[in-house]
Amino acid sequence: MSPEQSPPTMADVARAVGVSTGTVSRALRGQPGVSDAMRRRILRAAESLDYVVSPAASGLVTGRTGSVAVLVPFISRWFHAQVLAAAHQVLRGSGFEIVLYHVEGTAERREFFETLPVRRRADGLVVIALSLTDEELARLNGLGMPVVGASTDLGPAPAVGIDDVAGAAKAVRHLANLGHRRIAMIRSTDEEGFHGGVSRRRLAGYEDAMTESGLEVDPALVVSAPWGIDGGARAMGELLSQRTPPTAVFAEADEIAIGALRTLRRAGIAVPGEMSVIGFDDSPMAELLDLTTVAQSVHEQGLIAGRMLVEAVQQARVAEPAVRLETRLVPRGTTSARPGRPGTAG
Amino acid sequence: MSPEQSPPTMADVARAVGVSTGTVSRALRGQPGVSDAMRRRILRAAESLDYVVSPAASGLVTGRTGSVAVLVPFISRWFHAQVLAAAHQVLRGSGFEIVLYHVEGTAERREFFETLPVRRRADGLVVIALSLTDEELARLNGLGMPVVGASTDLGPAPAVGIDDVAGAAKAVRHLANLGHRRIAMIRSTDEEGFHGGVSRRRLAGYEDAMTESGLEVDPALVVSAPWGIDGGARAMGELLSQRTPPTAVFAEADEIAIGALRTLRRAGIAVPGEMSVIGFDDSPMAELLDLTTVAQSVHEQGLIAGRMLVEAVQQARVAEPAVRLETRLVPRGTTSARPGRPGTAG
Repeated sequence: MSPEQSPPTMADVARAVGVSTGTVSRALRGQPGVSDAMRRRILRAAESLDYVVSPAASGLVTGRTGSVAVLVPFISRWFHAQVLAAAHQVLRGSGFEIVLYHVEGTAERREFFETLPVRRRADGLVVIALSLTDEELARLNGLGMPVVGASTDLGPAPAVGIDDVAGAAKAVRHLANLGHRRIAMIRSTDEEGFHGGVSRRRLAGYEDAMTESGLEVDPALVVSAPWGIDGGARAMGELLSQRTPPTAVFAEADEIAIGALRTLRRAGIAVPGEMSVIGFDDSPMAELLDLTTVAQSVHEQGLIAGRMLVEAVQQARVAEPAVRLETRLVPRGTTSARPGRPGTAG
Repeated sequence: MSPEQSPPTMADVARAVGVSTGTVSRALRGQPGVSDAMRRRILRAAESLDYVVSPAASGLVTGRTGSVAVLVPFISRWFHAQVLAAAHQVLRGSGFEIVLYHVEGTAERREFFETLPVRRRADGLVVIALSLTDEELARLNGLGMPVVGASTDLGPAPAVGIDDVAGAAKAVRHLANLGHRRIAMIRSTDEEGFHGGVSRRRLAGYEDAMTESGLEVDPALVVSAPWGIDGGARAMGELLSQRTPPTAVFAEADEIAIGALRTLRRAGIAVPGEMSVIGFDDSPMAELLDLTTVAQSVHEQGLIAGRMLVEAVQQARVAEPAVRLETRLVPRGTTSARPGRPGTAG
């Protein structure tokens, strides 16, 4: 644009593409009724004309920000990053900008819920893998914008996730089917020492499968440690120091199982010959280390959460507001029959 | 706020905290001259009074958005997620909202550079681990906003990174010092088969150290494969099928080295007895698998990039605009003296 010319208008863009200004407006705001291909053509035309929508000016007119927010606690964990990447893909594909709130520490999390910076910054919010208190949930529900959960229980709000109780039961049933009777569970805690909702549900699955298999739940065999490889390593050490150690361990996440494997290797205990280990999630590390685990569709959870938010923002309703994805046992090299006792097939 | 009352103003917030409206304004906009503690007090007061700045209205007055953007290609890779998390921490701590542009695929990347959605959405941009074309670089420089690179060469713009040439030379020198003479390198390519800047610089370091050690650079020993564990596994297979395979391999990243280790394990080739392997980055996987590698400070790169952008946006100058962080060799269990030939200490 030369300095003499007046700035291009939306009508100029519409003329260049051969569509109505309404279509241009919808395309630039990420509203429905415009195909992805047309949206791209319009964006390119707007670009070549040097036409730029001012989100501030546009927002004052529509009351919309054109942005959605994602709240996620640990992007350096594989699961969180996968869900974020998939949700981002869907939301960008629908023309939204994505505002990221990464709340790794307790202080950051408290500040987010106290100040709710997402208000007026976004038209909606995806919450990934957070275990919310009642107060936090009330704050989110009071935001006055659509909120969608991925691997997060939001009460009545739309959410996608897995059945953690059933998934954990699959893991423990596999060990019981292999003839194990003393089956331990390693749980994880947050930085303040609390168990999140996922941990509580996976414990329930462990207890269900133990009871169903006629096995005693020995409280000494349920140990907790901070999330991660080091935590899993420490918890495994605790189990090995008991008078009657377990012969099999269900770790509530792959990273924790991998820490347990490290302790077992250092202690010279053969896996699976002397100790079976099973994880949860089926991360790339699990495949690499030949870890038996329970798989969940992580990428798909992000895609579905993204789609739910697009529907909620654009159509004010979510077609299918409660999606439960399947889990499945992935038998690999870290589980086998109980030593000295032939097990039935898992 | 009851319906009868008029909406709270900035003056109400200032009165509640006992500061000037100027201080409240600066605090709410993330501008300098307000301590973190004061900013939090003001945010809390604004919150309890139900005072909300409208970013749209505020942006029209100041010309600022209060947001900064981060452009990152692969958040599911450990390195990218770490840098993003650290940059986010600094930027949020300075009161900015973070708009995320995740451009995993070529199409998304092309769309970002064609349409530059970041314009008017943000006051500045951090670019993480992208190898930019001259055209892309020109587009960023034409944005009219501060741009900062982390592990990204931006020409004259501020950037933090490591000396990849020197780091790679450390890895290869270690192998040469162990007596190896046929040293291979595994490089990675992007989805279109191109080598990025990091790959080119690490190749230069490989060549430097080979020449310096009086060793021949055999083109057959430099192989490429797509980034990741599978790519590394495939490239290692290629090396094993040669008439005179190498006795040591430098992989340009830990994930690639881990793929190489998988192939060696499946082929029954002892590491390090028959083949030494060294990676680059010192990811958690490297530690777990006892992989010798070259470490870089990843979290610190994110912190520094975040700080640079805060300076650039708030003070229009970056105190130290070109930061090179050190790398260091981390000897572990996957490298040893060349078979049949005592090596000198690495």
